[in-house]
Amino acid sequence: MSLLDSIDSPSRLRGLGESKLQRVADEIREFLLESVSTTGGHFASSLGVVELTVALHYAFDTPNDRLVWDVGHQSYPHKILTGRKAGMASVRKVGGMAGFPTREESPYDAFGVGHAGTSISAAVGMALALRNRGARAVAIIGDGALSAGMAYEALNHAGSCKELPLTIILNDNGMSISPAVGSLNDHLQSLTGKWRDDESSLFEALGLDYVGPIDGHDIPTLLAVLRDAKTRTRPHVIHVVTQKGRGYERAELDPVAYHGPGPFDLVDGLISSAGGKRTYSQVFGQWLCDSAAKDDRIIGITPAMREGSCLVEFEQRYPDRYIDVGIAEQHAVTVAAGLATEGMRPVVAIYSTFLQRGYDQLIHDVALQELPVLFAVDRAGIAGGDGATHLGAFDIAALRCIPNMVVMTPSDERECYLMLNTALAYPGPCAVRYPRAKTGSDVIGRTNEILPFGKGIIRRSAGEHGDQRVAFLAFGPLLSVAMEAAQEIDATVVDMRFAKPLDEDLLLTVARSHDVIVTIEEGTVTGGAGAACAEHIAAEGLAVPVLRVGLPDEFIRHGDRSRLLELNGLDAAGVLETVRVFTGRHFDLFDAV
Amino acid sequence: MSLLDSIDSPSRLRGLGESKLQRVADEIREFLLESVSTTGGHFASSLGVVELTVALHYAFDTPNDRLVWDVGHQSYPHKILTGRKAGMASVRKVGGMAGFPTREESPYDAFGVGHAGTSISAAVGMALALRNRGARAVAIIGDGALSAGMAYEALNHAGSCKELPLTIILNDNGMSISPAVGSLNDHLQSLTGKWRDDESSLFEALGLDYVGPIDGHDIPTLLAVLRDAKTRTRPHVIHVVTQKGRGYERAELDPVAYHGPGPFDLVDGLISSAGGKRTYSQVFGQWLCDSAAKDDRIIGITPAMREGSCLVEFEQRYPDRYIDVGIAEQHAVTVAAGLATEGMRPVVAIYSTFLQRGYDQLIHDVALQELPVLFAVDRAGIAGGDGATHLGAFDIAALRCIPNMVVMTPSDERECYLMLNTALAYPGPCAVRYPRAKTGSDVIGRTNEILPFGKGIIRRSAGEHGDQRVAFLAFGPLLSVAMEAAQEIDATVVDMRFAKPLDEDLLLTVARSHDVIVTIEEGTVTGGAGAACAEHIAAEGLAVPVLRVGLPDEFIRHGDRSRLLELNGLDAAGVLETVRVFTGRHFDLFDAV
Repeated sequence: MSLLDSIDSPSRLRGLGESKLQRVADEIREFLLESVSTTGGHFASSLGVVELTVALHYAFDTPNDRLVWDVGHQSYPHKILTGRKAGMASVRKVGGMAGFPTREESPYDAFGVGHAGTSISAAVGMALALRNRGARAVAIIGDGALSAGMAYEALNHAGSCKELPLTIILNDNGMSISPAVGSLNDHLQSLTGKWRDDESSLFEALGLDYVGPIDGHDIPTLLAVLRDAKTRTRPHVIHVVTQKGRGYERAELDPVAYHGPGPFDLVDGLISSAGGKRTYSQVFGQWLCDSAAKDDRIIGITPAMREGSCLVEFEQRYPDRYIDVGIAEQHAVTVAAGLATEGMRPVVAIYSTFLQRGYDQLIHDVALQELPVLFAVDRAGIAGGDGATHLGAFDIAALRCIPNMVVMTPSDERECYLMLNTALAYPGPCAVRYPRAKTGSDVIGRTNEILPFGKGIIRRSAGEHGDQRVAFLAFGPLLSVAMEAAQEIDATVVDMRFAKPLDEDLLLTVARSHDVIVTIEEGTVTGGAGAACAEHIAAEGLAVPVLRVGLPDEFIRHGDRSRLLELNGLDAAGVLETVRVFTGRHFDLFDAV
Repeated sequence: MSLLDSIDSPSRLRGLGESKLQRVADEIREFLLESVSTTGGHFASSLGVVELTVALHYAFDTPNDRLVWDVGHQSYPHKILTGRKAGMASVRKVGGMAGFPTREESPYDAFGVGHAGTSISAAVGMALALRNRGARAVAIIGDGALSAGMAYEALNHAGSCKELPLTIILNDNGMSISPAVGSLNDHLQSLTGKWRDDESSLFEALGLDYVGPIDGHDIPTLLAVLRDAKTRTRPHVIHVVTQKGRGYERAELDPVAYHGPGPFDLVDGLISSAGGKRTYSQVFGQWLCDSAAKDDRIIGITPAMREGSCLVEFEQRYPDRYIDVGIAEQHAVTVAAGLATEGMRPVVAIYSTFLQRGYDQLIHDVALQELPVLFAVDRAGIAGGDGATHLGAFDIAALRCIPNMVVMTPSDERECYLMLNTALAYPGPCAVRYPRAKTGSDVIGRTNEILPFGKGIIRRSAGEHGDQRVAFLAFGPLLSVAMEAAQEIDATVVDMRFAKPLDEDLLLTVARSHDVIVTIEEGTVTGGAGAACAEHIAAEGLAVPVLRVGLPDEFIRHGDRSRLLELNGLDAAGVLETVRVFTGRHFDLFDAV
């Protein structure tokens, strides 16, 4: 029996002699290799913090002392040491363990995370409350996450507190998901490798004591520093240098590829994906390269998501027109606004969930000034294995209420390409929002065409030989689900294309000629595109019921996208059943077919 | 004729000899005293930058060189020097000059501002575009605004650029609207007064060259430094020390009171407000003190809006439970989440427009974890003199689409107090949103009562002796407008109280017994509370038309609130006319009364 198997909680770990801790770390790493190569998951970050995690749980009295893991990509060793080793087999799967720390999962997960830069703020809040309770809050934040403005806001607050039971661990591995960028990172590089007691660091300028840099794989050193930290009454930063991917050579050499791989072979490494259908992200990446070749005003901007947003080729071909601002979504949006005022055509490639970080900037700097910034909103809809923290459900509702915004929802790869063309031709702010999903095609059709602005298109006309009863109005890729369902009940299907401006003429024409309107979108039904349809139909006082099919008013947890769509009634069978129940209140639809 | 009268553009200024510039500055200051004491407006900040503004327009080739004023409170001297002296008489009034730099107003306003911390991002974007055009971008940012995370994100980007025609002026007056807070400010204090060439500053740690501190009222020194700046190819920070309120003793002594006064007497100073109706902000401030006395879990949090949010008394009575995080809305929300995980009951007092900055944190850190954070959302609705940048129109739409959120809309001072009680008693996240307006009462009724959760209340029942034709469903203070309009046409009036959860039972009961539903709210009609009503009515397939009255889908400019309400049809006469036109499509309402 391994030593690790005997550790069902951190208190058991703390019962071991210090000399056993490296063996525990080695066993965690071995277990991680086996389990993540089988399940997929956040791998390289977790490998990098094995010793640090062991030392933290050994030195601190968890869960009374609170560990707050920033982002949480690196939390697998923490999960393993806190009674969840068996759960690793189900990580990121429906009903299984979350890939991130989650309060509902364990008392050791002091704060739920997923987005970068939240840990210091949360830990400051905890530490303020813990001041007289003899416990401590510990934030563990990577150098990549430290580029987030809110981390700085929190440092600025922490540094102004003379006494606070707060320890900040800077886990410096020189990486975000991609290599870390920004001058802060350059500064950390300058600190690494020797004590810089001849100058104040950034942290000291902000009023925080600074310790380090220390070797994050050296358990005795870590323990000595952490024990010292427990005696400190002033907030402080411990600069720990770790190696992302540590202990698995392929991951050490290519931590980007091994950041969050799917299942892979431990000996042969990652299996290269064998072609197949293109993702929406790939369509965007291709479109950006194609358009940049024709239009030198185009600038591509990413907040640290080069790989995820498919900007690798763009960076290679147009390095001077590629900007990775780091995990800094607010700045990404406003630097785009600044570029737009000078006649450039910035394209902000951003995930729906991260655009929430730039919401004020989109409103105040882009939309208000009607600047032509194109938002390529990726991961719009169900987040898959990343789960609730990354849910891309809110963008349609949050964007369509903003004046001057245009919001488009492509239903396949060609529509996506066309909408990006359309957005680029439009002299104001536009969002094109698409999911983390494959399109229906294995090729990317490239075209110069643009779409009629603000117009939808009928994809299937039903009921030529009888009553026109049901009309599906689709916003986005669930059009294909609507088409499949429509076959069964001879329904009309419209690709609405624009969530804003809404094609009101088409909407009302369809509403007047059908008995039920069914809107369908991979976004929240509360205030979303279907709600926009309901607004107009109610304003007309039409007696046609509007069924809004989409994501429910709840945070959808992690799991396989197609399975989650099914569980939320968003496959053809689910949609038909929902339509059946809904129309049953009004008439018997299914007998008529 | 004054020298200032001859300067209709910066090029005229640049035609003067250097020896004349202090006289120009003196005349600007004299003019400011006269004009702002008459009109009201942002006063003390503008007084502080008179010499700096003269020096900037003299040293740089504006508008080819771009000046980006952060926030813009300090932009009046800039407006005066750029051909808008006459416009000062109409500043912040309907149809008059904006209080902030605005692109639509002048080519010298390179970027529209209002929220803090945007200037460096915008200037970085401009500078990237200007690299080969022989021009320069200059951001002028106060030390208070520098606490915003996005300013740091922008510094981090700028510092990583080896060459960039970017000058950042740090206008250090030790103030936000309230005194500046945070460790950064402590650091700036430590730099002030002498060159600190023995240590690197925060800025140098971020890769930016640092010049200063210099006296911001000494024009020859300013010119020498700015001329040097024009020759620099690396991005750099010039640390300028100014005195807020400079030249008017009352403002120098109390820059908080003179930050943005109404009209005042130059000799006697501010006229103390003579009692009268209480504002919603005052109701909140009183409620917070009352509740804190009874519940020691309560913590009050403000992002640098102590005065505006009426937290002055709370700070005095409960200094240990008062947190001013600086202009750092993201951190304000997540530090509250951290406090809530430890059993505290944080109350975040925040303006609607600034909550946009914490949108992701509200979703990811508060709502997802169902933490009991109370958002007291002030300035929800029309922004008055502050105008489009501060428009509080979007919060209902943006918040009601978020799972687990509760959104309440008080219609008077008693409802406001009751809703705050209700929110505090509720074990999850709540927002109570109220406008920058007076309530209908001159006393604050204090009570321990709470409201029935998620329930509205009928305030006027119409049509007892005839058809029930029109029902007003009010969300917030426009209830009084609905009541007034209802008298004219014998309509029903409901105070819906909750925008989320919506009182669906009451809604449908009313919808089934009336011919027209008119929702009314001081928020956008696109996706707002009225849209929530439309969703439910359309889902039921009821043939009752829903007229959504509220703010239009556009950015409403500056002006007096009651005048802007009237211009947007939100007084009783306007509402009646809108109802008349709307119902005219369905039936002749007004003949029947």
